[in-house]
Amino acid sequence: MIEIKPFIESVAGFRVASVAAGLKENGALDLALVVSDRPCAAAGVFTTNRVKAAPVLLDAERLARNPNGIRAVAINTRCANACTGERGLADAHAMARHTARALHVQDEDVLVLSTGVIGTHLPVDKIAAGIDRAAEELGHDWDAAARAIMTTDTRPKLASTCLSASLGSYTIAGIAKGAGMIAPNMATMLAVIVTDAALTPGQAQHALVCACEETFNRIIVDGDMSTNDTVLLLANGASRVVIDDAEAERCFIEALTAVARQLAQSIVRDGEGVTKFITLKIGGAPDAAAARQIGSAIATSPLVKTAFYGGDANWGRIIAAVGRSGVPVDPAALRLWIAQGEDALAELLLFEHGMPTNYSEAAATAIMAAPSITVHLDCGIGDGSATLWTCDLSHDYVSINGHYRS
Amino acid sequence: MIEIKPFIESVAGFRVASVAAGLKENGALDLALVVSDRPCAAAGVFTTNRVKAAPVLLDAERLARNPNGIRAVAINTRCANACTGERGLADAHAMARHTARALHVQDEDVLVLSTGVIGTHLPVDKIAAGIDRAAEELGHDWDAAARAIMTTDTRPKLASTCLSASLGSYTIAGIAKGAGMIAPNMATMLAVIVTDAALTPGQAQHALVCACEETFNRIIVDGDMSTNDTVLLLANGASRVVIDDAEAERCFIEALTAVARQLAQSIVRDGEGVTKFITLKIGGAPDAAAARQIGSAIATSPLVKTAFYGGDANWGRIIAAVGRSGVPVDPAALRLWIAQGEDALAELLLFEHGMPTNYSEAAATAIMAAPSITVHLDCGIGDGSATLWTCDLSHDYVSINGHYRS
Repeated sequence: MIEIKPFIESVAGFRVASVAAGLKENGALDLALVVSDRPCAAAGVFTTNRVKAAPVLLDAERLARNPNGIRAVAINTRCANACTGERGLADAHAMARHTARALHVQDEDVLVLSTGVIGTHLPVDKIAAGIDRAAEELGHDWDAAARAIMTTDTRPKLASTCLSASLGSYTIAGIAKGAGMIAPNMATMLAVIVTDAALTPGQAQHALVCACEETFNRIIVDGDMSTNDTVLLLANGASRVVIDDAEAERCFIEALTAVARQLAQSIVRDGEGVTKFITLKIGGAPDAAAARQIGSAIATSPLVKTAFYGGDANWGRIIAAVGRSGVPVDPAALRLWIAQGEDALAELLLFEHGMPTNYSEAAATAIMAAPSITVHLDCGIGDGSATLWTCDLSHDYVSINGHYRS
Repeated sequence: MIEIKPFIESVAGFRVASVAAGLKENGALDLALVVSDRPCAAAGVFTTNRVKAAPVLLDAERLARNPNGIRAVAINTRCANACTGERGLADAHAMARHTARALHVQDEDVLVLSTGVIGTHLPVDKIAAGIDRAAEELGHDWDAAARAIMTTDTRPKLASTCLSASLGSYTIAGIAKGAGMIAPNMATMLAVIVTDAALTPGQAQHALVCACEETFNRIIVDGDMSTNDTVLLLANGASRVVIDDAEAERCFIEALTAVARQLAQSIVRDGEGVTKFITLKIGGAPDAAAARQIGSAIATSPLVKTAFYGGDANWGRIIAAVGRSGVPVDPAALRLWIAQGEDALAELLLFEHGMPTNYSEAAATAIMAAPSITVHLDCGIGDGSATLWTCDLSHDYVSINGHYRS
């Protein structure tokens, strides 16, 4: 059992800083640095959107060329530096170059992340001044760093865990920002995860892909995908724990996945206008990919999401979403349960044999009134399974996203 | 130029009737019959949802066996007869059998359509009594028939056109119901189109598939797909105009498509909570399917839809939806315009060369304030194009669909 803490005490060899660089109009923290005192093996998982923001292009190229020498990540809010053309790429390079200079590291050792408005250019001067100040204030206030990367998130998102290995103990810790909106941006998801374990770049990339597959790629707020979505992993080896065999690697991936899951779930919980946290457990599908496809059809259905918002045990909408998922399900083989709580055991059977059961509407309504609900679907035709996390669609989602740009 | 009228005077050889059979609690019309005085060549296009309602299963099977002898369609509201198992199928057969008896035709000459609540059984007695009364009242009140099939539609949907051919003139006319909701149903779309032209069943099916492809399959309210969606075409030949050569067939398909387009657009205009009618014109895509895929990604994006609701010319959300559509677009080649009105010419260029243009925000806001907006996207990489029609996502959509079942 891996214990995940919702805060970060410290991670050996890593320091962070955050400043109010004047990007957010209310004077809040809006720029953060994550810095390692030694080169890191680094890995990244990026948006698959064909329209990629400049920092995504820069980071992907830099990680390909220099996966063993990353020293810092600079993160700004209020401007996504997306749809900004050649100048946007030049600005991202300028931001990285300025960070490198302030930290006395090589230009190519710096990664950059941006979130905020699409289609406006980076305020490079403000950001450079902020980086200079942040570089003077490096310390261990991870909570402030997590706050500095928030957009319309209502709370910071942190997770950490400490693992014992034969050679000693090491830490995995991460911060994330989620389904927040600064119009006209969409819900950019950013996460930076660090560890003082020693990994090769290949191990780091493999572990990050495995972890994201089970966590950040399993959360659905509204089905939209940002131009900026990025998850980074930096491993600096400061704990002297080397991930040097298959069992150690398995443990590392398991712990990394647990940290990523906590961050990913935090993003859903704090999604725009969210009032319900929904765990979807799909089983009995032809394979895992089919299970995920079915879960995704349920999680992106506006009719299902509004039913959760209304507290309605609307199995009809769920079954119809399953039917149009593209997976060749057999309606007569489907079984659907709901339960109160997160990742809860199947409790109330609503549907089987192609029909609703004779369930108690009062019992269903009681479950649907809970802030966390688990939906179990057994497709009854195979061994594929998947778990996804999603949320409801509320009036507040429409209000937040229907606002005129200010 | 095909003139489409939003009403139906009469179609030779066809009669309709509608009654209040006690299905709707408010005593409104809730059951309709469409009857031909002679056998029709008939065709159907049905939901591709794997979970199909009993009437869909019955009609598809009946059209396969008896495509040249259909005499009547019986339609009820308030109960979708979906997710009702073996009993549901037996009930659909009973409804057809009762209709046949009342009209003195063969059982297999009747089709049935149902819309309403999922998972409850047909009130067969009420429906049978209603059919008996309707059979006594056959006439030409198509408006009442269109009203009788409404669920939460706010207005009836009718369209008709008259064509001149060398042998005389003929009529194509249809009624539809759309994006209406009787919780826990989803937005079932039903349409019945009739013509007094003479077609073979093969011609009828080909024409209907062509017409639906360009119309009913191009409208997106919320991306959900019903268990009951059905479009039927009945051709009885009463005009004595025979569609007997390629040119006549081309004309028929063009006119049928125009009637279907009018009905399909009416469904979007009357969609749940709709405040804006959006025409999406996608060009320059690798092929027509890719253009449609891009249009679908835009039309189903909650972020795009809420931006339309807010009257925000949020090109960033549109471009991001294009980027995640799965079509390998080149961000630098994309060009995006908006214009006021339906199917309007490109007017204000918002985005090109991977960046926003220096457009006037006031001009953009003025366009977005209109009740009808056309969005043009040129992908700049091919010849594929497609037009889709969609709508915004409003507070009222959430209210309508978030309600508890009553």
